Amino acid sequence: MNIALAQINFHIGNFGNNLEKANKALEEARDQGADLVVFAELAVSGYPPRDFLEFRDFIHKCRHSVDQLASRCKGIAAIIGGPSVNPGGQGKKLFNSAFFLENGQVTEIRHKTLLPNYDIFDEYRYFEPNRDFNVIRFGGKRIALTICEDLWNIGNDRMYAVNPMDRLMMQDPDFIINIAASPFHYDQETDRKDMLLRNVQKYGLPLFYVNHVGAQTELLFDGGSMVISSRAEIIDELAYFREDLKVYDLEKVDRPGGSAASAGNRKGKTERIRDALVMGIKNYFDKLGFRQAILGLSGGIDSAVTLVLAADALGPENVRAIMLPSPFSSGHSVGDAVALAENIGCPYDTISIDEVYDSFIATLKPVFGDLPFDVTEENIQARIRGVILMALSNKYGYILLNTSNKSEAAVGYGTLYGDMNGGISVLGDVYKTEVFRLARFMNRNAAVIPENILAKPPSAELRPDQKDTDSLPDYEILDKILYEYIEKRNSPQDIIAMGFDERVVRRTLKLVNLSEYKRHQTPPILRVSPKAFGMGRRMPIVAKYLA
Amino acid sequence: MNIALAQINFHIGNFGNNLEKANKALEEARDQGADLVVFAELAVSGYPPRDFLEFRDFIHKCRHSVDQLASRCKGIAAIIGGPSVNPGGQGKKLFNSAFFLENGQVTEIRHKTLLPNYDIFDEYRYFEPNRDFNVIRFGGKRIALTICEDLWNIGNDRMYAVNPMDRLMMQDPDFIINIAASPFHYDQETDRKDMLLRNVQKYGLPLFYVNHVGAQTELLFDGGSMVISSRAEIIDELAYFREDLKVYDLEKVDRPGGSAASAGNRKGKTERIRDALVMGIKNYFDKLGFRQAILGLSGGIDSAVTLVLAADALGPENVRAIMLPSPFSSGHSVGDAVALAENIGCPYDTISIDEVYDSFIATLKPVFGDLPFDVTEENIQARIRGVILMALSNKYGYILLNTSNKSEAAVGYGTLYGDMNGGISVLGDVYKTEVFRLARFMNRNAAVIPENILAKPPSAELRPDQKDTDSLPDYEILDKILYEYIEKRNSPQDIIAMGFDERVVRRTLKLVNLSEYKRHQTPPILRVSPKAFGMGRRMPIVAKYLA
Repeated sequence: MNIALAQINFHIGNFGNNLEKANKALEEARDQGADLVVFAELAVSGYPPRDFLEFRDFIHKCRHSVDQLASRCKGIAAIIGGPSVNPGGQGKKLFNSAFFLENGQVTEIRHKTLLPNYDIFDEYRYFEPNRDFNVIRFGGKRIALTICEDLWNIGNDRMYAVNPMDRLMMQDPDFIINIAASPFHYDQETDRKDMLLRNVQKYGLPLFYVNHVGAQTELLFDGGSMVISSRAEIIDELAYFREDLKVYDLEKVDRPGGSAASAGNRKGKTERIRDALVMGIKNYFDKLGFRQAILGLSGGIDSAVTLVLAADALGPENVRAIMLPSPFSSGHSVGDAVALAENIGCPYDTISIDEVYDSFIATLKPVFGDLPFDVTEENIQARIRGVILMALSNKYGYILLNTSNKSEAAVGYGTLYGDMNGGISVLGDVYKTEVFRLARFMNRNAAVIPENILAKPPSAELRPDQKDTDSLPDYEILDKILYEYIEKRNSPQDIIAMGFDERVVRRTLKLVNLSEYKRHQTPPILRVSPKAFGMGRRMPIVAKYLA
Repeated sequence: MNIALAQINFHIGNFGNNLEKANKALEEARDQGADLVVFAELAVSGYPPRDFLEFRDFIHKCRHSVDQLASRCKGIAAIIGGPSVNPGGQGKKLFNSAFFLENGQVTEIRHKTLLPNYDIFDEYRYFEPNRDFNVIRFGGKRIALTICEDLWNIGNDRMYAVNPMDRLMMQDPDFIINIAASPFHYDQETDRKDMLLRNVQKYGLPLFYVNHVGAQTELLFDGGSMVISSRAEIIDELAYFREDLKVYDLEKVDRPGGSAASAGNRKGKTERIRDALVMGIKNYFDKLGFRQAILGLSGGIDSAVTLVLAADALGPENVRAIMLPSPFSSGHSVGDAVALAENIGCPYDTISIDEVYDSFIATLKPVFGDLPFDVTEENIQARIRGVILMALSNKYGYILLNTSNKSEAAVGYGTLYGDMNGGISVLGDVYKTEVFRLARFMNRNAAVIPENILAKPPSAELRPDQKDTDSLPDYEILDKILYEYIEKRNSPQDIIAMGFDERVVRRTLKLVNLSEYKRHQTPPILRVSPKAFGMGRRMPIVAKYLA
């Protein structure tokens, strides 16, 4: 039996586009001799469809796509994910289902049992869990068909009471298929392989795994669909960060010595983050129907790295860099920014904000009188830049890229409606120390980013001789404290016990908790860590805890 | 047996404050002869604690508060809601629990069975559902202790397979206690009473119901705790929109003719919305430790209504109104705004944006050349106002109130980083037609809001002779279409079948779906409807559905 894995970049709610891609993959699989082609979880709608699942019309369109694909399944079968209506009178209205298509119609439906409802996942919001367990019979084989999380209740930290594979094993299946929507973070590839291998070790069956690829706003699906033999060897992996389709002979896959084990994706953490961010930018623009980006290029490292990523994603000619010096900008800032833009080959302009700044100060003078310069005037500069960048964006149809990093976003070191503006935040899930590693990676062959940008101490340049370290600890320390609190949910006591200065720890966590109101109004952030700001981290705003 | 209902305004994560309030209520209840005092669901933490529940330290502090309160329970018992650790090795780490406190300690714990995970609720994200059902014995009685949603699986639209009261009835309880966190929307009081009465009718037992009161950012808890006799009469209700404590004699409550049925909260929909918004503003400021608000007063109806609400919440002396005329403002705008500010008695200033506008135009001239005036220049005006209001907010420590209404927010008729700025959105869940009803309610005794503000056609005044109806349908029609799509999740076909013009319907729904990116960066919105923008409505941004 020949099984095709179809790893596709779907687009949420774009039914015509998604069906066309599935149809094309079906024909390609058929041409390559496949008996069965497997698509990802909730493929017909794109993942995650979120509250569109509450619209009957949306569900109807999902089912229509399934039926359309089924009508083409002659001489080949298919498995595709989509929502299905719960026919019972009780429980949630939908199941998260896998449709089995054969002989021109839907012949079987299986439902997801384990519904993730943590971090970025909200599946229990929409779906009733499956309670019936049956293999699918096809071509003389029995398939244990599972959906993503159904295989994840296998480590030490078990979140669910049921284990769907335990139940399916009672029917003596020949192999496992898992259709998934497993988004990238920098450790997810390892976690995912570990989990799939544990399943194969426990059940002794070959496994065919199909994941999504492509970005849906903040969620970045890295692909990496794979085939594992019953001896727990990864036989092959599909591409990372791009569409792919391959056909495997079930007999050969599971024949000892029949296939060489996969070399896998051997890229390091920083390079994987880079690949994910480039895909994230590209797909955000593609799926919204935009081609061109704009960003403010300050001469600092965050906007420099954002520019390099955007140029890789969209082409340098499609990224416009704007230098926006103020009276407090250092002499080298514009020069460094220009050197970078020239290296990249992107269009750039310099627009001084001096005149607008003076007019704001004059306009506010009757109200402010002789009150001293403070954070107000710093924010005015950041907001003028925001207005100018948005004006260019409005006039020419660019999307503004936000360049804030995760360290800043965490402690609220940024101006709401100023440098926190943007359609998408490129680095909002990347700590400052990792931004430096990205820059050094980008410079591994040649100094694309001028060395001066890497070397100078980070500064917002909103008042004379300002440095980030005036008000924040060194990033080497700050990022470690933030990681322990945000990613690891450790308490101040835990973090202090690790050897960090108590005063610094308490002040940092207080800054994090007092900045929730700012992050609430932040653009969506491309997610590359296991705990990103945004949909996966939900905090009350008026709370008074460690604040 | 005397039972006290303690309806308290808790503050999320403010453990010292919450415990102090609970201790005080316990003493008050004891003074009034209560044998048992009942607090709301998750009272020790405040509701909803959201992802703070993932911090072990936070859970530890919750339990510490329960133990502290228990130590005072001598000669009186108490029931209080809080999270408890799931001692089993499988499932989610926590239960949503009710602690029974007696003789100085925690003597019993019961867990919530039905975990709401729709709209604004995320309880399955944190909690394992209860599977054991046992009454609590106290003072010779058997109490069926339930938590909020546990009583809601009783209508026609059953979301859960289990019914906790069915199980508890096997142990022959004498009365029901339900501790709740049931947030306000304009129909919730009716829905809640209907559901509680259905339970009493089904089980034939008296019911004691304790709700939260007070706002937690966008969620507005209206209180309205109540006692219902076994004959399904509402015997009494606690106050709406304020703290309250009352003691009831169980025997008298259930004696026929012993108590007169409650008159209830007979306010109309518009007045209830008004009360909820005033509480929402007041609590947002109180809980963040701010006293003073600022807002832009345009001479239009949205900012006028927002000002009246804010003055009611904070006192007119604590709300500063700023008129920000541009070259395109009509002659009457500032005059109408000044008249309103004078009526209210709030401080106000007029700051022309002309000079700053000219400086932006001059600064952008080298880039824009002779490109014609378009939405760019309109947005620049809105953004200049945003910068000035935020400058005043920064300089003096005001919170900026956002004045956008739900109709605008729905179709994206507003400028991101301009008039969409603010710490909290007051009217973002109030359609324009309801804003007019609020204004007329405010003017019921005297013309607080100048009649001209109510009479003139709505306009953004960002170009000459602009009116909202230039680009939008009449609000009477628009609001109905929006309600059918947003609140009712009807499809375009459904809405067209109701008699609305097809072109208008399709264009409106497209505008709604294309504006998700704007709403993503919106301030939190005080929630008064069953489906508000924000945490209760989760939409993908790059989706292509009806768009």
